[in-house]
Amino acid sequence: MKRLIVATALILFSHTGGAMQADIQEWTTRAGTEVLFVERHELPIVDVRVTFDAGSARDGDTPGLARMTSNLLLEGTPERSAGGIARGFERYGARVSTGSGRDTAQVSVRALSEPARLDPVIDSLADVIAKADFPADAVERVRRQMSLGLQQAQSSASALAEKAFMRGIYGEHPYATPPGGTLESVEALTRAAVVDFHRRHYTARNATIAIVGDLSAERARAIANALSGALPAGEALAALPPVDIPSSAQTIRVPLEAEQTHVMMGQPSVRKGSEAYYALYLGNHILGGGGLTSILAERMREERGLSYSSASSLTSAARRGRFQMTTQVRNDSLPEALSVMRDSLEEMRVDEPAAQRLSDSKRNITGSFPLQLDSNRDLLGYIATIGFYGLSRDYLEAFVERIDGLDGEAVRAAMHEHIDPARNVTVLVGPEATINAAE
Amino acid sequence: MKRLIVATALILFSHTGGAMQADIQEWTTRAGTEVLFVERHELPIVDVRVTFDAGSARDGDTPGLARMTSNLLLEGTPERSAGGIARGFERYGARVSTGSGRDTAQVSVRALSEPARLDPVIDSLADVIAKADFPADAVERVRRQMSLGLQQAQSSASALAEKAFMRGIYGEHPYATPPGGTLESVEALTRAAVVDFHRRHYTARNATIAIVGDLSAERARAIANALSGALPAGEALAALPPVDIPSSAQTIRVPLEAEQTHVMMGQPSVRKGSEAYYALYLGNHILGGGGLTSILAERMREERGLSYSSASSLTSAARRGRFQMTTQVRNDSLPEALSVMRDSLEEMRVDEPAAQRLSDSKRNITGSFPLQLDSNRDLLGYIATIGFYGLSRDYLEAFVERIDGLDGEAVRAAMHEHIDPARNVTVLVGPEATINAAE
Repeated sequence: MKRLIVATALILFSHTGGAMQADIQEWTTRAGTEVLFVERHELPIVDVRVTFDAGSARDGDTPGLARMTSNLLLEGTPERSAGGIARGFERYGARVSTGSGRDTAQVSVRALSEPARLDPVIDSLADVIAKADFPADAVERVRRQMSLGLQQAQSSASALAEKAFMRGIYGEHPYATPPGGTLESVEALTRAAVVDFHRRHYTARNATIAIVGDLSAERARAIANALSGALPAGEALAALPPVDIPSSAQTIRVPLEAEQTHVMMGQPSVRKGSEAYYALYLGNHILGGGGLTSILAERMREERGLSYSSASSLTSAARRGRFQMTTQVRNDSLPEALSVMRDSLEEMRVDEPAAQRLSDSKRNITGSFPLQLDSNRDLLGYIATIGFYGLSRDYLEAFVERIDGLDGEAVRAAMHEHIDPARNVTVLVGPEATINAAE
Repeated sequence: MKRLIVATALILFSHTGGAMQADIQEWTTRAGTEVLFVERHELPIVDVRVTFDAGSARDGDTPGLARMTSNLLLEGTPERSAGGIARGFERYGARVSTGSGRDTAQVSVRALSEPARLDPVIDSLADVIAKADFPADAVERVRRQMSLGLQQAQSSASALAEKAFMRGIYGEHPYATPPGGTLESVEALTRAAVVDFHRRHYTARNATIAIVGDLSAERARAIANALSGALPAGEALAALPPVDIPSSAQTIRVPLEAEQTHVMMGQPSVRKGSEAYYALYLGNHILGGGGLTSILAERMREERGLSYSSASSLTSAARRGRFQMTTQVRNDSLPEALSVMRDSLEEMRVDEPAAQRLSDSKRNITGSFPLQLDSNRDLLGYIATIGFYGLSRDYLEAFVERIDGLDGEAVRAAMHEHIDPARNVTVLVGPEATINAAE
């Protein structure tokens, strides 16, 4: 097992000739779909993901529409029921799944690589994606499921905080739209709207295909042609509008009777592919992204006993992702917790991180990154991301090098430039007396 | 594709010599674990499930303990972290999952059948099941997840109804214990209790192994020995106490402000392996288990527009499963809906079902059953069930024959004998005025 990890790490991180760069093959199909392919023969399996520019940022004035379309994609075609579709894949040992977020909706399949087993799976997948016909009873069932989730979220502090935070940092930008919709919007979604969303967004020119596994480039081309050729050509969508950083700090208070107050604090971050991402990634890891050894966890949990869970996270997105610190604290500890969070962030912007912390975090990130890439499925996720967002093709190789090359000053400077406390949105979900008293 | 279905159906339902009976091979390992094995070479994959007598019925006075143990099983051993365990499987293309219910907790894996890939997966699985050591931070994380789910359930009509219904029909029997525990019980669960539950329940004598796939009996034996040999021998648990049918009808009212009232009505059914199961299964299908064409759906939805979702279901279990009718109706329609449900059930007990309905339902069940068995994974589920519950080894073959052989009088008689309206538990979750006014 150890030998295998080492071998994989060598494939991905050989610094002798950019092995990883050469490993990604890419082309555009006749139908206009971009394809990224990595050939790996360790296992007799193939992973394929089709990514569409069809996330909730495309919901427009019907929040939840993209999610509902994605949730319904495997529910039927004119010829086949949901059960028939599921059995069609399972019969060949294949597993298919769908998912959606703010930027994208995806369909993924894992299948055995032998042509007699893979080819019918790909034909089936092409058929299902292109001809999904959204049966009325499935629409009602999915609507009920989504409504139930939304009803439950109404009493969930973390769900309430998330919703308020996204509205606070993204304002009128489509990223503020909750991917799952609202109780009112989901109730009003129609099958006709789903059919129309599918027709406009699930098209060849709005798709990126990622393929990883045990097949030749020639067979990968045939697969990509089968998948993209079944789709209507369509048109690439206009880019999303830019995200503005909030012009001032803001505190949003959401009353909820509870023994703890849920806190989220942060702002929009950077877009995918931004050069600043690496230093921010390392900075966030030191501040609160590195688990129990990060600054926030130590100060909030170990030193003061304020909270069992305090963390920060950083994401990027087609426009801007987000940076946030999150915690849950006893109501009487809220003022102290807010001070610790704000001071810790300010410190990251003013002082270079301690040398030991910096080197520990760098070793942690660069050491675990290869481990995350030793499976085809994980690699598929990275390849799909590189393709959809148009990241540099040496992204995987460069990531470790970039993190490795950062010093404390680079981290401090990036935090100083991109995370401005004077523009932080703070969300407090807790009892009225508690949240009204907090600054 | 069509050819494949037909071939599979022939394997399973050949009436010429009990082909299916011969297909299940079974033995007991040296460690005392029962094994059921079906050899199928259509795909180069193997599905394995280890089923333990470790469901929530074994929770005792610590509701949620069995579920928490199951949820934590893949979270660490003394040598490996959760990430290391996941990567250990994924590296060989294998997928592993855990689950738990009232009777059982299971671990399932799907892997490629080639020995060089399968053997390390089995070794890894044996190691993980036997040596799970439940890291303290994982215990806290799973506790938070379970608590969050329970908090959300507090405002969910269906979750409130389910909890009250189970308490109503099972009384003091362990089946009444909610598998996910309660807010108080989950808060009080300790790592020590999890370790102890695992030690007592995840043993060779409490396990049944089901194996389906592309390998010889000899290799299946080696796999079963590796899995059971890693476990402590342990002791088979005492059988659960019997379930008594409620002695009288009862209505349980749970106040919840909402525009609809959630209704559940039913009682304990029969145990796994009961001869009455087949006729009850068909009766339930006709009454409300057959989707939009069943009696309840037609009367509630089509004829009266009372509800979009009205259904019944029937399960069996080690002791007794349950029969229930479920619907959601506008508050002002509750009295009419209750009448329709009660009348429909009473009719099933007094009159034979109409000939057309009977033959449609029989054809629907016997026609779809082979379709549900054309995948190794589905077959695995049936084999595991047959093994754990000690069902007749010709269960799969017999099921279609039994359903096919039932006439209307057999259905009526079974419903009359086993579903007694005078013992029905009715749960109403809705506004106080509405539920208090209903009978």
